[in-house]
Amino acid sequence: MSILVVGSVAFDNIASPSGSVENILGGAATYFALAASYFADVRVVAVVGDDFNSDHELVLKRRSIDTRGIERAPGKTFRWGGHYTDNLNEAKTDFTELNVFEQFQPKIPKAYHDTKFLFLANIHPSLQSAVRQEMDAVRFTGGDTMNYWINNTPGELAGMLKLVNVLLINDTETKMIAHEPNLPRAAQKVLAMGPQALVIKHGEYGATIFFREGAFGIGHHPFRAPTLPIDEVRDPTGAGDSFAGGFMGYIASQEGLNREVLKRALFYGGVMGSFAVERFGTERLQSLTREEIDERFQVFRELTHLE
Amino acid sequence: MSILVVGSVAFDNIASPSGSVENILGGAATYFALAASYFADVRVVAVVGDDFNSDHELVLKRRSIDTRGIERAPGKTFRWGGHYTDNLNEAKTDFTELNVFEQFQPKIPKAYHDTKFLFLANIHPSLQSAVRQEMDAVRFTGGDTMNYWINNTPGELAGMLKLVNVLLINDTETKMIAHEPNLPRAAQKVLAMGPQALVIKHGEYGATIFFREGAFGIGHHPFRAPTLPIDEVRDPTGAGDSFAGGFMGYIASQEGLNREVLKRALFYGGVMGSFAVERFGTERLQSLTREEIDERFQVFRELTHLE
Repeated sequence: MSILVVGSVAFDNIASPSGSVENILGGAATYFALAASYFADVRVVAVVGDDFNSDHELVLKRRSIDTRGIERAPGKTFRWGGHYTDNLNEAKTDFTELNVFEQFQPKIPKAYHDTKFLFLANIHPSLQSAVRQEMDAVRFTGGDTMNYWINNTPGELAGMLKLVNVLLINDTETKMIAHEPNLPRAAQKVLAMGPQALVIKHGEYGATIFFREGAFGIGHHPFRAPTLPIDEVRDPTGAGDSFAGGFMGYIASQEGLNREVLKRALFYGGVMGSFAVERFGTERLQSLTREEIDERFQVFRELTHLE
Repeated sequence: MSILVVGSVAFDNIASPSGSVENILGGAATYFALAASYFADVRVVAVVGDDFNSDHELVLKRRSIDTRGIERAPGKTFRWGGHYTDNLNEAKTDFTELNVFEQFQPKIPKAYHDTKFLFLANIHPSLQSAVRQEMDAVRFTGGDTMNYWINNTPGELAGMLKLVNVLLINDTETKMIAHEPNLPRAAQKVLAMGPQALVIKHGEYGATIFFREGAFGIGHHPFRAPTLPIDEVRDPTGAGDSFAGGFMGYIASQEGLNREVLKRALFYGGVMGSFAVERFGTERLQSLTREEIDERFQVFRELTHLE
């Protein structure tokens, strides 16, 4: 099945205790697309500038990612610089240059209109909603957001929450949206705002999926998947988007959609996030095999399953 | 099998967003003993003052806990006051009055010398080592410590680490002991200092057990157990000691000692910690049934296990 991601493509400068890199290909849509490409056919809607060349495009094309939806605009591509100190869970932003991304108006190619699975990466919630409303064939939508939209466009965000089947955010974002410090209670409040399921990413501690009563099956219990404790986290950038790519990509690869599929998807999300952080930027995501992915899936299972 | 805990008995004043209580029975040994009492025969070595009366003792005796090792000293029992704000993971200490605990010299009753399982709760590491060395019949020892001893008595702590089979501490303590910000690497460094296994408690995210190569079986992967996301955390005090009680109590209840037992013990630790936080102080731990415990164990399994 095809899955479409709408979001940012960027060039990043990243420094961590393991080293530093400059002008490497990044952005939420890039990490998502590469991670999802091991499970499904991926389409991308994004905007880039004159500095995005054929070598950059080749990174996506080598993974058979459909790049027809990447618009070329005059000017420079979105640039982000950040660094990590010993606390690898938190990026410190050095600079953000929105460039062509500032005026991003997602344009969905006609050829993409039969897409069944959609991921709305972190952009203005009004743009996310507009994309979802334009895509009639979509039957499952995932979405992301960030503190900026939670604080500055709560109304637009509430509109977007009514249009997504699953929201993927972190602990802090969940508590911010719900205005509630207790995580399980905050999760219930977010679910009451629209999504059928909520994936809360806990960084190095894995992720939990909460379900609305009756959504995708019965029962009221959440489900938790781990991440692998990694000795050498070189660059956490893109871990959340890679998680989303593995999660949504696995869902798009399955015939049915039920809780067991969503639980396995949560494991695959953790697997792809764990690979992403092993190298700077998207390096590790460019050269995986499905065998390596399934091998790590088994490790994750052994890491958590009793006999 | 019998298990002996050596540690503090205290009276606590606790305030949290859910309410407040004063002068309630607490202390690491109390939480540990109550949690472990659902799995094994529990013995306690501790010191209390004149204010510890028969009603307090009855809390332990009702759970068939052997209190012969609780020494009565002239003066007042150890008192601690603390409060929690919205961040329930972190207690703010309001006061600490060591009282009779300041001169605590653990005295092991003769009748306890056949004990096979030992838990050294958080006291001076030299006292922990002395107790372990006095107990010839012990075949499995668990230990706890805290930032105070890590910073002020690193030599004595290093001695204690050589005498315990498993150390149970949290993320921050692990990184402090190892002088290493990466958790898996820090875990390996702590294991190299002595213990065969290291349980790192992650608060609301569960716990991970790391094994020394070859200890308790083969393989180099850690194992992670969840906690139940709890809607109403009333009082986190004693969660870690209750975790230790469930973990060590389950181990003491088993014939053999291998990785599968330790993994299940990690689940039972999480189960007992999750019960402890539902009510103030030890209230919930006083009135459980083994059926409720095993029911929650099943919930924990469903929370993490794929079909």
